[in-house]
Amino acid sequence: MSSSTQIKSNEKCIRVAIIGLGNIGQFALEAIKQTDDMQCVGIVRRQLVTTEEQLTLGVPVVTEIEALGHVDVALLCVPSRSVEQQASFYLAKGINTVDSFDIHENILSLKSTLTPFANEHNSVAVIAAGWDPGTDSILRALMLTMAPKGITYTNFGPGMSMGHSVAAKAIEGVKDALSMTIPLGTGIHRRMVYIELDTHADESTVIAAIKADTYFSTSETHVKVVRSIAELKDMGHGVSMLHKGVSGQTHNQQFMFDMRINNPALTSQVMISAARASMKQKSGVYTLIEIPPVDFLAGNKEEWIKKLV
Amino acid sequence: MSSSTQIKSNEKCIRVAIIGLGNIGQFALEAIKQTDDMQCVGIVRRQLVTTEEQLTLGVPVVTEIEALGHVDVALLCVPSRSVEQQASFYLAKGINTVDSFDIHENILSLKSTLTPFANEHNSVAVIAAGWDPGTDSILRALMLTMAPKGITYTNFGPGMSMGHSVAAKAIEGVKDALSMTIPLGTGIHRRMVYIELDTHADESTVIAAIKADTYFSTSETHVKVVRSIAELKDMGHGVSMLHKGVSGQTHNQQFMFDMRINNPALTSQVMISAARASMKQKSGVYTLIEIPPVDFLAGNKEEWIKKLV
Repeated sequence: MSSSTQIKSNEKCIRVAIIGLGNIGQFALEAIKQTDDMQCVGIVRRQLVTTEEQLTLGVPVVTEIEALGHVDVALLCVPSRSVEQQASFYLAKGINTVDSFDIHENILSLKSTLTPFANEHNSVAVIAAGWDPGTDSILRALMLTMAPKGITYTNFGPGMSMGHSVAAKAIEGVKDALSMTIPLGTGIHRRMVYIELDTHADESTVIAAIKADTYFSTSETHVKVVRSIAELKDMGHGVSMLHKGVSGQTHNQQFMFDMRINNPALTSQVMISAARASMKQKSGVYTLIEIPPVDFLAGNKEEWIKKLV
Repeated sequence: MSSSTQIKSNEKCIRVAIIGLGNIGQFALEAIKQTDDMQCVGIVRRQLVTTEEQLTLGVPVVTEIEALGHVDVALLCVPSRSVEQQASFYLAKGINTVDSFDIHENILSLKSTLTPFANEHNSVAVIAAGWDPGTDSILRALMLTMAPKGITYTNFGPGMSMGHSVAAKAIEGVKDALSMTIPLGTGIHRRMVYIELDTHADESTVIAAIKADTYFSTSETHVKVVRSIAELKDMGHGVSMLHKGVSGQTHNQQFMFDMRINNPALTSQVMISAARASMKQKSGVYTLIEIPPVDFLAGNKEEWIKKLV
């Protein structure tokens, strides 16, 4: 991570606070430093850091967002299961929020819950702003725009799932966890979960609890106890999306999207692009497919039309 | 093409008129017949067709759009060089327009020219609504949303370019033409132009005129005179887009989109999706990157969020 202190004098800079300082929070801080139109005004977390750590981060770390002055967007770098509470808290203060909530089946209900907070306090939430859900969702919409009939397969990995790793680590008795997603084709996946156990944890109880968790219960899941998670950790990931379908009455139209990426780096970058887009939307709650793609990009819209269209 | 007559009683159906009956117009008619939320109310062209042809088409063919009753969207299935005049004509009647204008460097100026027509007459134009410019433009925007730094290469083909074939055919002395786009990698292309000559045309004059046309002057272009274009014609096409870039401070993020498609079938399908989206935008002129992707899809937005996000 860069240790350079960020000094941006542009008054039009979007003032972003990072909530949480896990993997995503740290990568988000790096990414904001690379933009010209945003500045990180600080990090909000329960525990303060040492003066030395704060110097390395280059931004203040506080426990209450009020200590950071005016904030335009709160980047919720917190586990999915904390998003609803955190987002409603900041939206009610009139601060836009961006999260990478990844529990697909609960996204619509998250949207409904947050909508009154956003509407009443004139704020914007961009939800599920990672890569899946997120940019992959845009790709699925785009493939159906081009060929409305047919099957789309989203094949993840091989790679480390942040959401599943966090979910496994949250199970009692788990000291550290790494959940790998293995593509078996046609949208079917295996989960390989590596765990370090707490000293007195019962292995079979812990394994059963992981397999019963809704993050894992619907997929083939193997849990392996290992000595050290740190030795296995590689944050690379990927996806391969295939759509074979029909445009009009013409069959066999074929579309493929493939990416190989560092997972938290991509997730935090998408969140930052979504933070920018949040400043251009009317009050309300948005998933990525509800936002014009050009709004994610920095700078002048006409320049992007010239360059990209 | 299906010969079934279209009977849709849904009052909420979007009433679409097809302007022009070339390749795109014919594929558009097929594609509208496959939707549940649109109906083709007729085709507008200079020359009328025989009663037999009209029965095959299943919709009225007229010379003036007023003969079709209320029309929501005019689908401009005309050469790019006629788009400006046609779009301003229909926009001024309060009718939305969709075109697949493909002259990249003139898109921004087309947008400026059409904007007062749309704003003053409360209509919407969706411009450059094909696959490139069009859906590829969305992909380029999306790749930069995920990794703002780095190079994007768009490699077309091998396949038949409709725009370039029409442009070659418009040259004096050319009876019929087929322009193939050959990818040489890193966004460099060769154009292989096959032509049938008019009886008294001078071969070298025609070839020079094609090579001087702005559609061809910036690429390596080879022109071959052949006996029959019909024998060579295959409307398959494709694209391979590559983006290798930086998310935040993390390098080597890799993205690839590849498609193999029937060209007029895809173009007309994108136009129809854009026609639907035009009904959901405020007055004005839009390129595809300015429209929320979910607006291209038929039906309920919440259902799509549930399904795609």
